[in-house]
Amino acid sequence: MRPFVFVNIAMSADGKISTRERRQVRISGNEDYLRVDRIKAESDAIMVGIGTVLADNPSLTVKSPELRAERRAAGKDENPIRIVVDGRGRTPPDADILHKGSGKRIVAVSKKAPKKAVEALREQAAVVVGGEETVDLRGLLEELHRQGVRRLMVEGGGTLIWTLFEQGLVDELQAFVGNIVIGGKEAPTPTDGAGFLREEDFPRLRIIEAVRFDDGLLVRWEVERT
Amino acid sequence: MRPFVFVNIAMSADGKISTRERRQVRISGNEDYLRVDRIKAESDAIMVGIGTVLADNPSLTVKSPELRAERRAAGKDENPIRIVVDGRGRTPPDADILHKGSGKRIVAVSKKAPKKAVEALREQAAVVVGGEETVDLRGLLEELHRQGVRRLMVEGGGTLIWTLFEQGLVDELQAFVGNIVIGGKEAPTPTDGAGFLREEDFPRLRIIEAVRFDDGLLVRWEVERT
Ligand SMILES: NC(=O)c1ccc[n+]([C@@H]2O[C@H](COP(=O)([O-])OP(=O)(O)OC[C@H]3O[C@@H](n4cnc5c(N)ncnc54)[C@H](OP(=O)(O)O)[C@@H]3O)[C@@H](O)[C@H]2O)c1
Ligand SMILES: NC(=O)c1ccc[n+]([C@@H]2O[C@H](COP(=O)([O-])OP(=O)(O)OC[C@H]3O[C@@H](n4cnc5c(N)ncnc54)[C@H](OP(=O)(O)O)[C@@H]3O)[C@@H](O)[C@H]2O)c1
Repeated sequence: MRPFVFVNIAMSADGKISTRERRQVRISGNEDYLRVDRIKAESDAIMVGIGTVLADNPSLTVKSPELRAERRAAGKDENPIRIVVDGRGRTPPDADILHKGSGKRIVAVSKKAPKKAVEALREQAAVVVGGEETVDLRGLLEELHRQGVRRLMVEGGGTLIWTLFEQGLVDELQAFVGNIVIGGKEAPTPTDGAGFLREEDFPRLRIIEAVRFDDGLLVRWEVERT
Repeated sequence: MRPFVFVNIAMSADGKISTRERRQVRISGNEDYLRVDRIKAESDAIMVGIGTVLADNPSLTVKSPELRAERRAAGKDENPIRIVVDGRGRTPPDADILHKGSGKRIVAVSKKAPKKAVEALREQAAVVVGGEETVDLRGLLEELHRQGVRRLMVEGGGTLIWTLFEQGLVDELQAFVGNIVIGGKEAPTPTDGAGFLREEDFPRLRIIEAVRFDDGLLVRWEVERT
């Protein structure tokens, strides 16, 4: 058993999620900012890869006081459980995700993570160990389910999203397509990693909705079960 | 003076135009196939980069007999002028683009193209020489305009499209977004090359239309003049 997993990303019209220098760029507008805050508040947990933590240092907190109050009124923490997928325990001890806002944090590491790093991280987060070189994502999702997580939001980056797709662990993809061109064959994209080679391996999607706002387009796809 | 330039591509939901192995994949369906044939027939010329010729060996002919007949009735060649942007004169002498269908072909090379290759190409196409290492695209577009080309379709790949955007030579972008995930940080995307680094350099787009068909989404953006 695992949670419902949905990926949410903002990409340029040419399918980039940041510049080649991995600098965070504003792809969507205010309306999408509110939408993302809402779907975050509706999730039990939110997950990112260590690449995103190192590049963007996001806090992943719910920004709206109203949404935080709603969560509290429902008997929940103000923020969903924040999870970093971090094979080698490289999450900086002063990362915003570990300090800003209240609520639980989980750092998921592999057996490759140095003991010292794991010990330091344990002071600020629950540490889950699984996987030889990289994090065992299926095992992690099962553990999250046991802890009560039913709805998991994945915020990137492209390397983590790739492995989730490769292992058939994505149920829905939400992409805000912004009104810019970023370009760059080395710029991060929604799904990086090795990539699929054979058409029969491509995950197939079905559009749930496509709506225009903020000068862009929000597309929601469900992933077909195979 | 240059022609109106529009780029047409088919990409996966995660912004890829083929696999990492550069194998051509079916991203769109029959309805989009007919649409692309129509916009091709409505163009005066159609352009691709040598990377696309070597990877896909496209003929770029108009497929529909009706559309070819319409072009003839209007006093035009059956096919738009087919153009390869090929800095070093690597277009294979037996490439489909040089042999299939009637109408003019232009191979645009740079001064780096070996004399021998240029001579061989001249037997099958008009050869335009311009640019030191790579093709001078602005000069080529001006030459095309002098030859009467008013509407130019660009079919890829990502390297050529990048340079066109970088030089401010794109008026419209049409993307069919298909219902698959391809993945791969090395898979070709709609705009490869170096990529923009500063937000103030990003080309800004405006959605003209977004319509669902063939299980996917066709989005047309106009490029804002700066
Ligand atoms: N526009 C958006 O919506 C958006 C959202 C998020 C991120 N981004 C951008 O994405 C970029 C970062 O993406 P990224 O691809 O470099 O990094 P990432 O996906 O955030 O993190 C990938 C890292 O996670 C670790 N990992 C451990 N186990 C893994 C597993 N089983 N599968 C996959 N990864 C595993 C690996 O590092 P170890 O080997 O050290 O374990 C891997 O390199 C940044 O430029 C950021 O700005 C954009
Ligand atoms: N899904 C789709 O809609 C679609 C459409 C087309 C292509 N594709 C895919 O795209 C891939 C090929 O793309 P690609 O990026 O490798 O190649 P490309 O853009 O077709 O061609 C790029 C090449 O053109 C030459 N060139 C000369 N002058 C240039 C200039 N000023 N600017 C840019 N290029 C110039 C360069 O080679 P020289 O240095 O030799 O001159 C350059 O490497 C293939 O995998 C193909 O399947 C997909």
